[in-house]
Amino acid sequence: MSSSLGTLFRVSTFGESHGVGVGAIVDGCPAGLQLSEADIQGQLDRRRPGQSDLTTPREEADQVTILSGVEDGLTLGTPIGLLVHNKDQRPGDYGEMDQVPRPSHADFTYQAKYGTRASSGGGRSSARETIGRVAAGAIAEKILREEWGVEIVAWVSSVGSEQATGIDPDKVSRAQVDANLIRCPDKTSASRMETLVREVLETKDSIGGVVSCVCRNVPAGWGEPVFDKLDAMLAQAMLSLPATKGFEIGSGFAGTQLRGSQHNDPFVQKGDRLGTVTNNAGGVLGGISSGEPVLFRVAFKPVATIGQPQQTADFDGKSVTLEAKGRHDPCVVPRAVPIIETMAALVLLDLALRQKVRKA
Amino acid sequence: MSSSLGTLFRVSTFGESHGVGVGAIVDGCPAGLQLSEADIQGQLDRRRPGQSDLTTPREEADQVTILSGVEDGLTLGTPIGLLVHNKDQRPGDYGEMDQVPRPSHADFTYQAKYGTRASSGGGRSSARETIGRVAAGAIAEKILREEWGVEIVAWVSSVGSEQATGIDPDKVSRAQVDANLIRCPDKTSASRMETLVREVLETKDSIGGVVSCVCRNVPAGWGEPVFDKLDAMLAQAMLSLPATKGFEIGSGFAGTQLRGSQHNDPFVQKGDRLGTVTNNAGGVLGGISSGEPVLFRVAFKPVATIGQPQQTADFDGKSVTLEAKGRHDPCVVPRAVPIIETMAALVLLDLALRQKVRKA
Amino acid sequence: MSSSLGTLFRVSTFGESHGVGVGAIVDGCPAGLQLSEADIQGQLDRRRPGQSDLTTPREEADQVTILSGVEDGLTLGTPIGLLVHNKDQRPGDYGEMDQVPRPSHADFTYQAKYGTRASSGGGRSSARETIGRVAAGAIAEKILREEWGVEIVAWVSSVGSEQATGIDPDKVSRAQVDANLIRCPDKTSASRMETLVREVLETKDSIGGVVSCVCRNVPAGWGEPVFDKLDAMLAQAMLSLPATKGFEIGSGFAGTQLRGSQHNDPFVQKGDRLGTVTNNAGGVLGGISSGEPVLFRVAFKPVATIGQPQQTADFDGKSVTLEAKGRHDPCVVPRAVPIIETMAALVLLDLALRQKVRKA
Amino acid sequence: MSSSLGTLFRVSTFGESHGVGVGAIVDGCPAGLQLSEADIQGQLDRRRPGQSDLTTPREEADQVTILSGVEDGLTLGTPIGLLVHNKDQRPGDYGEMDQVPRPSHADFTYQAKYGTRASSGGGRSSARETIGRVAAGAIAEKILREEWGVEIVAWVSSVGSEQATGIDPDKVSRAQVDANLIRCPDKTSASRMETLVREVLETKDSIGGVVSCVCRNVPAGWGEPVFDKLDAMLAQAMLSLPATKGFEIGSGFAGTQLRGSQHNDPFVQKGDRLGTVTNNAGGVLGGISSGEPVLFRVAFKPVATIGQPQQTADFDGKSVTLEAKGRHDPCVVPRAVPIIETMAALVLLDLALRQKVRKA
Repeated sequence: MSSSLGTLFRVSTFGESHGVGVGAIVDGCPAGLQLSEADIQGQLDRRRPGQSDLTTPREEADQVTILSGVEDGLTLGTPIGLLVHNKDQRPGDYGEMDQVPRPSHADFTYQAKYGTRASSGGGRSSARETIGRVAAGAIAEKILREEWGVEIVAWVSSVGSEQATGIDPDKVSRAQVDANLIRCPDKTSASRMETLVREVLETKDSIGGVVSCVCRNVPAGWGEPVFDKLDAMLAQAMLSLPATKGFEIGSGFAGTQLRGSQHNDPFVQKGDRLGTVTNNAGGVLGGISSGEPVLFRVAFKPVATIGQPQQTADFDGKSVTLEAKGRHDPCVVPRAVPIIETMAALVLLDLALRQKVRKA
Repeated sequence: MSSSLGTLFRVSTFGESHGVGVGAIVDGCPAGLQLSEADIQGQLDRRRPGQSDLTTPREEADQVTILSGVEDGLTLGTPIGLLVHNKDQRPGDYGEMDQVPRPSHADFTYQAKYGTRASSGGGRSSARETIGRVAAGAIAEKILREEWGVEIVAWVSSVGSEQATGIDPDKVSRAQVDANLIRCPDKTSASRMETLVREVLETKDSIGGVVSCVCRNVPAGWGEPVFDKLDAMLAQAMLSLPATKGFEIGSGFAGTQLRGSQHNDPFVQKGDRLGTVTNNAGGVLGGISSGEPVLFRVAFKPVATIGQPQQTADFDGKSVTLEAKGRHDPCVVPRAVPIIETMAALVLLDLALRQKVRKA
Repeated sequence: MSSSLGTLFRVSTFGESHGVGVGAIVDGCPAGLQLSEADIQGQLDRRRPGQSDLTTPREEADQVTILSGVEDGLTLGTPIGLLVHNKDQRPGDYGEMDQVPRPSHADFTYQAKYGTRASSGGGRSSARETIGRVAAGAIAEKILREEWGVEIVAWVSSVGSEQATGIDPDKVSRAQVDANLIRCPDKTSASRMETLVREVLETKDSIGGVVSCVCRNVPAGWGEPVFDKLDAMLAQAMLSLPATKGFEIGSGFAGTQLRGSQHNDPFVQKGDRLGTVTNNAGGVLGGISSGEPVLFRVAFKPVATIGQPQQTADFDGKSVTLEAKGRHDPCVVPRAVPIIETMAALVLLDLALRQKVRKA
Repeated sequence: MSSSLGTLFRVSTFGESHGVGVGAIVDGCPAGLQLSEADIQGQLDRRRPGQSDLTTPREEADQVTILSGVEDGLTLGTPIGLLVHNKDQRPGDYGEMDQVPRPSHADFTYQAKYGTRASSGGGRSSARETIGRVAAGAIAEKILREEWGVEIVAWVSSVGSEQATGIDPDKVSRAQVDANLIRCPDKTSASRMETLVREVLETKDSIGGVVSCVCRNVPAGWGEPVFDKLDAMLAQAMLSLPATKGFEIGSGFAGTQLRGSQHNDPFVQKGDRLGTVTNNAGGVLGGISSGEPVLFRVAFKPVATIGQPQQTADFDGKSVTLEAKGRHDPCVVPRAVPIIETMAALVLLDLALRQKVRKA
């Protein structure tokens, strides 16, 4: 079940970077929801390559088709099949790469695991696999928005050592995020980041970054003790994405340096609900949403595929110099934004549905 | 299924901090393994409270009983029931706390989720719930060690802003870790940390910290694409622990500042296997173990329960001053060490078993 | 996960016929339900051995203890641990049986599967394993009754070739069922069956039978297409019981001989709901409950352990004559009645909870 | 997860009878298996409508496309996407049927469950849904055959009251089964059955039947106690098929009339393994395969859709006369044969893979 996520709103993805296509089945979508391809295409468009000169120029329209589960524009409650065709079905001539596992890629580990691997393009370890997730997550977003008013917004909060400043998680919007190529809602920060990415691009190198995400209007009570805590499920979802190396919620690693008297979030009445004065918890207490915004951050390493020659070894252990062909994203975090949002939606909706059966 | 973890080696925990006891069922343990309570008790002893004047003085022997699944000292392949009795079965008189949700505790969210909650002691959100995990994980450790020679060692790498230095993940041992109360294998660092914890204890406060963990001799090939990647499953497991706020593997958040040319781990022949020169990946490529040591870090916030008076609100939103009675751990990370190790073992063994069916 | 059943109301059983005890964890029980051991003990008492001179005289009180998940008589929403101690913890001296797999028992297959087996008493294949199911199912019954008014009644409908007559599934009650030792609510039929069982007992033989079950007041809409149909889940649940060889719902095997024009159940208005004139479907259409009574039958083979000498082979294939010691039930169906009812309850409640999330 | 089956070899189906198409994702197929569409198409062809004048004339080529998981004719170990396009994507004008739930169909229960339903053709309750299962099961069959030599053969053993005679489960072959339209390997029996089906067809009626199935060369040890017993999983799989009303294994319901001394299968050495003289168990002891042939039978009710006018009620409870348009199979059992075989293969392979991890 390595390719399935969720207990009640369950997505199963399929597809390699080459082959007929990639996609997903969504099982457990409630019936009677208005749904068409247009509801899904928006996030796929934000995810797809070739959006600017800062991303990989691979040309893929990534148009989604709904195969099942919807009739006359309404969900039937049955599995929703989602398919995006690959433009280029035949593996290219990757030549040298077949003999040499790319450093910090999954070529070596897939071979070790399966005794074989997709001949090129990374197969299931390709970023292309995330298409099925984004398509499914776009459906989850719609339900969360319509039924509970949940708003999910992710943004680039750092590229390399360039940190974003001046962003208010309580107010930041997707429009602000999409106002520039970097997807950092603070203009000045975005500008610094763009400069850095262009410099990296010129040196045929790559650079890492951090994506922050806020989920607003999540009601108190979502998340299952013990193992399926909201933060635990988010952590799994985020670390399941290619190139991620870390996850933190609320105060995160920085919070480990605080004392309890500084870190504790005192309760206070907020309108008709009990809220907290501060939100070091990141909206989660004991693995269950508190009603405060859910706030988390995801670390992305620099993309492994770079244009510079690299000294490494082939599968037989012989030392070789590897030079990647083609061009790749110098920095993945701008395109990661919609992926983080939709993955968060998948986690939240599944836990929301599970919460529906908790009280007698 | 909120209280179950694993696909083939599956642990289901039960029990509140008060009530008859806490424990777990382990389903899927291979048959024919030598197993007795003694194999499990060691990690439980490292986990239990009252080990020193730096931890909560709650006196619990935490003696485990095997209820089923073992006969004549050998596992039968059937579910292994594990039970640790609570010493104090009756909820104490928590008085005021019944009306006031403790800041940064799960009192409020359990109430919001279930419309009720254990009257005291945190119920399932109590650290006591981890007993079942540790007991189950001790069995997993034994299998990993005997079948694959896997060594798992965790240690305290920071308390507050005191960072450990001079620790070699390739060599660090549990004996070194247990050589001091803090469980930091570098003496000088441990000494600085202990001073800090004592200071915090005197001010009736608490402090956070970071636990690092290495898993050595993990063969290449463990971990399931897409959602059940080794790092994703570790992230879920770690964030499912009380008081955790972050997880990072390999280069983690710091690695986001590097360029690909610095971060990539070149391949090189190492004896009879292909290894990497550096290990920024933390032993995982594409979610699958590479054969290099698996290295990760877990962030723990400061304990929420402090002796200092706190300004907060009761369930009705009325402002109150809360003073916690009794005494609690000023810093949980020393006792978290065996918990992290056994949780890592649960994740690794489940993926190891799943790998057994991957090749035709 | 061989010892777990259910998606949202999930029971995991543990325990061998010998050892400390047998029991179950119930994960997913809604919070706020009034629950005590007394709610569970009733069905355990109906299941336990030694109820009459017609059943095995093994003396076990089978008193259940709730280990967790309940406080002040109310469920917390957390896992409910259930434990019944074994009276006789040490495997008896089964002597010869250790070398000889009992015909039509699981001795041989457990040995083939695990390379070992419980030295006596059948281990997990013992009828004693059903204690955990019955305890868990008794909780499910209570919820079904209180929330939906569901009534589940099973009865013995045949012993050997003695068929029960004159039983109306719409009205039959547990009081009628328990009015005699055979648990056949028709007195005359019960008398014929009892005569047969006594004859079988005298000849140190055993005899099979059929248990029928009706579930009344099940609302329309329970059951999940495709694989988790209500009838499919019932079939799995029933065939997972020791000694069962068949399951049929509604018209069952006899219905295969009918024509569609005879078999179809026409719709008709019944009060405020649409019902059917006949109920050949057994209350399930397309795997989903229709609102009509759910009616099914389960076939039990004759108990394998008989007092007569049997010609068979030992594990090495050498021909031997086996004589079972002790005494066993000549016919299991009377004691199977509460097991069937509670298993049906586990299936129904799980699907009822899953239905709660089906509409947007 | 209503549309997924299996723990390690996991199939998830999708698709309505109308819409783009139907299909499945197979997750967990071992890597390195030779696989092409041709391996799958054979069983799909045996399943498809329009094979003779005795089946529904719906014209569908049911040509399968592999979307993913296979490269250069070898499986990658990644999810295998399988798609069969629907010929007629637009719901036809079912007119009257929209207002009237067809007797003994799922129209009423889908509406009750979801508050909506596919406007025609039965949606997921259509026999067309089984295409995904058959495609996935054909892959499972190939693995079982190549790795263990497992042979699975199903046949029609009764139509109405016409019983097949003279069939030896130890020897019956698919070639014999396919030698006539009825798929009964005994010619004389088949001829009687065909006469009956033609008579039923002429009267615009339908008739039920029974399919028997044998799985030969299943090694001892497959099947998981407690809930995932081999016979329990087969029962679930078979009852999850449209129009099924019963399942029995080995002696089944008839065996309930026997005494233990008659029913017990004595052990005897057979070549290099321990076997049994008789096989009343149907190849399963305690839920685990014994090494003897696995033998079971599945009851199919008469098809609900008949050409005769039926007195029934519409959704509002008003009495109406319904006349079905078009033509449907008068008897489904011949086309059910490959479905039963492939479903059995899905169950067996999943348990075979699970058995691989059972011994330490």
